[in-house]
Amino acid sequence: MSTQAGPRSDPDGVRIGVDVGGTKILAGVVAPDGRLEAVAVRRTPGRESSVLLLESTVAEAVEEVTDGRPVAAVGVAAAGFVDGAGERVMFAPHLPWRGEAVRQRLAERFGAPVRLDNDANAAAWAEQLHGAARGASLAVTITVGTGLGGAVVLDAGAGPRLLRGRNGMAGEFGHQQVVPDGEPCECGGRGCWEQYCSGNALVAFARARVGREPTLLDDWCGGVAERLTGPMVTDAAEADDLVALQAFRAVGDWLGVGLANLVAALDPDVVVVGGGVSAAGDRLLEPARAALSRSLVGAPYRAVPPVRAAELGPEAAIVGVAALAADA
Amino acid sequence: MSTQAGPRSDPDGVRIGVDVGGTKILAGVVAPDGRLEAVAVRRTPGRESSVLLLESTVAEAVEEVTDGRPVAAVGVAAAGFVDGAGERVMFAPHLPWRGEAVRQRLAERFGAPVRLDNDANAAAWAEQLHGAARGASLAVTITVGTGLGGAVVLDAGAGPRLLRGRNGMAGEFGHQQVVPDGEPCECGGRGCWEQYCSGNALVAFARARVGREPTLLDDWCGGVAERLTGPMVTDAAEADDLVALQAFRAVGDWLGVGLANLVAALDPDVVVVGGGVSAAGDRLLEPARAALSRSLVGAPYRAVPPVRAAELGPEAAIVGVAALAADA
Repeated sequence: MSTQAGPRSDPDGVRIGVDVGGTKILAGVVAPDGRLEAVAVRRTPGRESSVLLLESTVAEAVEEVTDGRPVAAVGVAAAGFVDGAGERVMFAPHLPWRGEAVRQRLAERFGAPVRLDNDANAAAWAEQLHGAARGASLAVTITVGTGLGGAVVLDAGAGPRLLRGRNGMAGEFGHQQVVPDGEPCECGGRGCWEQYCSGNALVAFARARVGREPTLLDDWCGGVAERLTGPMVTDAAEADDLVALQAFRAVGDWLGVGLANLVAALDPDVVVVGGGVSAAGDRLLEPARAALSRSLVGAPYRAVPPVRAAELGPEAAIVGVAALAADA
Repeated sequence: MSTQAGPRSDPDGVRIGVDVGGTKILAGVVAPDGRLEAVAVRRTPGRESSVLLLESTVAEAVEEVTDGRPVAAVGVAAAGFVDGAGERVMFAPHLPWRGEAVRQRLAERFGAPVRLDNDANAAAWAEQLHGAARGASLAVTITVGTGLGGAVVLDAGAGPRLLRGRNGMAGEFGHQQVVPDGEPCECGGRGCWEQYCSGNALVAFARARVGREPTLLDDWCGGVAERLTGPMVTDAAEADDLVALQAFRAVGDWLGVGLANLVAALDPDVVVVGGGVSAAGDRLLEPARAALSRSLVGAPYRAVPPVRAAELGPEAAIVGVAALAADA
């Protein structure tokens, strides 16, 4: 990860974190202790929009929270593949970036050092520093947002580190195939885990039932299934709507099945689940824990890791990427 | 991993490695440079046989290769879950050990320090020290034998180390679910990867076709599908038998699909494939490479890791576990 090229840091300036997600862009000023001091939100221009529009929207959000103050560093967390050098977003299913030199362009625009990282890496790092993975030697963090991201933090004797891999692309759990010839995925594959466990999957589950089963969602979307959104499903579940509750149970079950695969491979101390969908708490996590215990190989002969809700909420990626930017 | 309790090492003695597999037990004397100096083989008593018979058979093989010489240390690699302390085989689908204190009992029997480890860990360690994973920062090794095992070796700055996990059970790739409600597995799960990618899967594929499609295997097993063995399928593939070739292609394809899941999660430098079935070489690895490139998320935007044949052959686990025992 390089932040050498380009503008210099103002050591007395603020640390900024930005999370460029599939649905919204969040920017915040992050104190050294991880506290968030100001937040700005923008809707993400869709993947058909221009790179220029996307980057302008990111800059708008950053300018709002910076409010004219000097800047020490800006961390940018992107919902996509970031290259090993931290220079480019290689591919992002929900964003228009395709191999763009995002770090350098944003550094020039902000006049400050920029660190670019994957959003799930950033969120996992925040949970390791300040949240549900504090003290773990090996933590798997899953981010259930529009799609499904993840990261591994491990301490092999020299303090915790993000597992990055050869291309900087470790942790792409959402694109593990869990169903042969299953649902087509934005990544080009089929049957990817995120097709069954993500905000999009939650909405797809509910959409398939609108107009066919009695549900509050029918009214809320005016009978037009395409108008259904994730927050509607969350609200309906809180009102004990059966279809919405089933949607969470289905997504939670798939979360546990996929976690069993990761735990079989890595045997972590703890699993942390964050991202927008995880705001549903035990409605998502209880079926996940049940499916993990049921599906995990050798469960009677081992300690099954706890599945904890992320503690830093929807701002985890901002907090984590600001810390990574400040350390760079 | 403890080897403190029990008998003392003779520093001038030989290093022994034993691989207790689902089909056979291999013991060998291993030189410090990894060369194998003597090997003994026994058939593994099945999982319905007694623990006593299994351990006597292991001891027989060790005594044969030791040939009365003093012993520095004995490494025992088992095809099953070994606890984090390296004391017990917690569970082994193809062996009678169920929570037995194998390390201590064998140490008393041999009068030498014993180190107990998982067979796939041992094989991966040998490939890291002397074989196809030399120099890698992050290597995934898959052992395709009777079942499917695996291990991760990573260098996080302090030299390569096996990733062990909280319970010492990391690397159980064979029990990742790849088919929902798929084939039942000895582990109690369904649709585990090893049901589609293993020596057993190779034989199951061929058995299902004997008597239904023209194949050399029909003659070789006297028309009794249950008599078919893995080596018969290997030999038939070498004779260009269509059913045998299809069996390798099916298993190789599943190997690549499962590898794509592991590469998405870990982004390793290299994938090494060992174990008995890998003796088929490119007959197994070519379809695996094709399926990996086809299934791996973001393949056009990354370096797809090479899939290399293990270099140490069927004795890899012996070599690796002897090295681990000598280092303990």
